[in-house]
Amino acid sequence: MFITLEGIDGSGKSTQAKLLAEALGEDTLLLREPGGTEAAERIREILADPAIELDPRAELLLFCAARADLVIRQIEPALAAGRSVVCDRFTDSTVAYQGVARGLGVDLVERLNEATTGGLKPDLTLLLRIDPEIAAQRLSGEADRFEDEGLEFQRTVAGAYDEIAAAEPERVLALDGTQEVAALHAAILDLIRQSSSPGLGNAPIPG
Amino acid sequence: MFITLEGIDGSGKSTQAKLLAEALGEDTLLLREPGGTEAAERIREILADPAIELDPRAELLLFCAARADLVIRQIEPALAAGRSVVCDRFTDSTVAYQGVARGLGVDLVERLNEATTGGLKPDLTLLLRIDPEIAAQRLSGEADRFEDEGLEFQRTVAGAYDEIAAAEPERVLALDGTQEVAALHAAILDLIRQSSSPGLGNAPIPG
Repeated sequence: MFITLEGIDGSGKSTQAKLLAEALGEDTLLLREPGGTEAAERIREILADPAIELDPRAELLLFCAARADLVIRQIEPALAAGRSVVCDRFTDSTVAYQGVARGLGVDLVERLNEATTGGLKPDLTLLLRIDPEIAAQRLSGEADRFEDEGLEFQRTVAGAYDEIAAAEPERVLALDGTQEVAALHAAILDLIRQSSSPGLGNAPIPG
Repeated sequence: MFITLEGIDGSGKSTQAKLLAEALGEDTLLLREPGGTEAAERIREILADPAIELDPRAELLLFCAARADLVIRQIEPALAAGRSVVCDRFTDSTVAYQGVARGLGVDLVERLNEATTGGLKPDLTLLLRIDPEIAAQRLSGEADRFEDEGLEFQRTVAGAYDEIAAAEPERVLALDGTQEVAALHAAILDLIRQSSSPGLGNAPIPG
């Protein structure tokens, strides 16, 4: 079972990813993008360095490079060993941020995602929806390169996520990210229990 | 005028790139891949670090990320300003090394190259051909990650380069890389003078 969490910065993805991984059991692999391998962490440093100006196309390819390493070294071996994988961001982030918000085009990003992952798709994606203004308040004081793009940019990303969810309703389940942490965690576990996603057919039910 | 130099490690590309850039005049921009921008130099450090194991697909995407940054920040602005650009390695390297020798497939690499460069092609590519055993002798004692792949690997790369030259004879001109430095430099200038490449029609003739 391969579950990804998506949403704009400040939507609570990282917190919920951690809680979900704990609920799914000790054997669950918790990952975040970009990162999770030595090369990917080095790539993350470049992406996060405010002193380095990056062309959007180079930025996209760096995210893809980190993802390729993560998929082949971590995600695929874990899934092959029967472990569950929870990943904080995955291919939908690249579609929403680089494809739509940075204007590189969804087609280009989808072709790159396919080349990067060899076609691996999450069984389930949890989209945490939140008003960008509320998300910005949550994040005040902890902005870095990823999270310093301004409200209009975050609104564009949020709209792109909604389109992804509308296009793939079986895989992408939207949740209200403004809820309290515990309530949102419970809602996520509920959704996973009820999910009719084919990939979850034989998965252990947490809780 | 955008000229690239290609060949296996130890073929003399870097030396000849430098001599050619000098011969073409002060205004010529000399670049090497991966590198040439701050982000690309950081990417080069990851690629060259023997302590970092890299999946071949991630390696390919890192080369592409560095190239995207280089094309947009250096090559395109220089060409737009009427400057000549000489680049030590470009897209043909990725086809030969990652596409063929690493087995990722020429199709995948060509699609990525297109996405990376937006279709920018060199006006002229100089392929320095050399027997991999002679190249290895030249390099003895200075092996790093790029140059420590073994003779069989270099033979595969050399074969891939020959196929590229056969497929695009107008763009890719092959030279005997075993010649003395000065003789090879003179041969390169000769070739450039004689070249019927359409991109060179209005270029100043060096020498």
